[in-house]
Amino acid sequence: MNGLFITIEGPDGAGKTSVIEELFPLLQQVATKDIVKTREPGGIPIAEKIRQVILDPKNDRMDDRTEALLYAAARRQHLIEKIWPALEQGKIVLCDRFVDSSLAYQGAGRGIGMREVAQINEFAIEGTVPDVTLYLDVDSDTGLQRIMSSRTNQIDRLDAEGLQFHQRVRHAYLKLADEHAERIIKIDARKRLELVVEDCFYELISRYPKYFQN
Amino acid sequence: MNGLFITIEGPDGAGKTSVIEELFPLLQQVATKDIVKTREPGGIPIAEKIRQVILDPKNDRMDDRTEALLYAAARRQHLIEKIWPALEQGKIVLCDRFVDSSLAYQGAGRGIGMREVAQINEFAIEGTVPDVTLYLDVDSDTGLQRIMSSRTNQIDRLDAEGLQFHQRVRHAYLKLADEHAERIIKIDARKRLELVVEDCFYELISRYPKYFQN
Repeated sequence: MNGLFITIEGPDGAGKTSVIEELFPLLQQVATKDIVKTREPGGIPIAEKIRQVILDPKNDRMDDRTEALLYAAARRQHLIEKIWPALEQGKIVLCDRFVDSSLAYQGAGRGIGMREVAQINEFAIEGTVPDVTLYLDVDSDTGLQRIMSSRTNQIDRLDAEGLQFHQRVRHAYLKLADEHAERIIKIDARKRLELVVEDCFYELISRYPKYFQN
Repeated sequence: MNGLFITIEGPDGAGKTSVIEELFPLLQQVATKDIVKTREPGGIPIAEKIRQVILDPKNDRMDDRTEALLYAAARRQHLIEKIWPALEQGKIVLCDRFVDSSLAYQGAGRGIGMREVAQINEFAIEGTVPDVTLYLDVDSDTGLQRIMSSRTNQIDRLDAEGLQFHQRVRHAYLKLADEHAERIIKIDARKRLELVVEDCFYELISRYPKYFQN
């Protein structure tokens, strides 16, 4: 497949959303191809409906494996309708979260097992691995402090399990970064936002001169 | 797990629904335990919502693999909320379609591949295999004739692909029956309804005297 498939990953509090917000316009200025910013469900009606089922607070009895299958289903449809067509047209795709998030959150965080979550995702993606993944790393104390001090996040997300859950997620990401060192770039996200954005920017433009001309 | 888990399978036109309607009260008369009749999504709110996404005619762009993941998700929740609790209480569960349907319809009929569909279902069911499966076998010509002459089925389900699709589904069922001969009982469903019901009934009561006393 043509195109360049970039994903951004990280635990809660890594600053992923803010980084993407600042990184995207910088990349647009130097991109030699169209660049598409997306995240699941990505405005895909079927994937949006699946997300509604996942996020509906009335569905409080949802099993962890049911949820993991639903995320894989939404991911599949997002790939089919948005990511694959963009890549086939040679575009750059910048995607907020992808399979690594499911491995870290459902596989490790929820305790289903990373290998098992990888299998159902492999069914969904049929070998579509990002060309490069920017992993924004932050220690769990800092991550949780940022979430707690943020007005946009609700405190009740942090129950007694908060720190342990966060640590399992982070350790899973570190394991993935270690196992896929050729794909996953670890970025120190404890730094100030501008510095994190700068690191992400230079990693991409130095690796992909065909797609980004400074 | 306690209990007895019975599934009924077959291609369209095998008469599955009619057989279950007549078989269930007969079994109730001889059952030594409570007997539960169910089919996905089984009145489970989360599974019902997933089925709504699958069946919504507006979702005509749904990919075959997305659909297979959604079926597996609905199956999981149905197991969690209805089948497992009933089996744990030692009940008999009579379930209209289960994993074999996904293997035959999505795996073989739609061409995703039976092994791949089996993998995502294994994630959903975690080793829950029916104790016994009644497979109602009917040749594809007979099956399609029955569907066409039935008022409850719409003719438009039978497009140009109808016969070939039906044949792939049936051949997949025959392969499964061959590979799992200890579990799957093949019933000749070309016979008259009463005779098919009788065959199903005697197979069950002769195999499971602990659960059915004649």
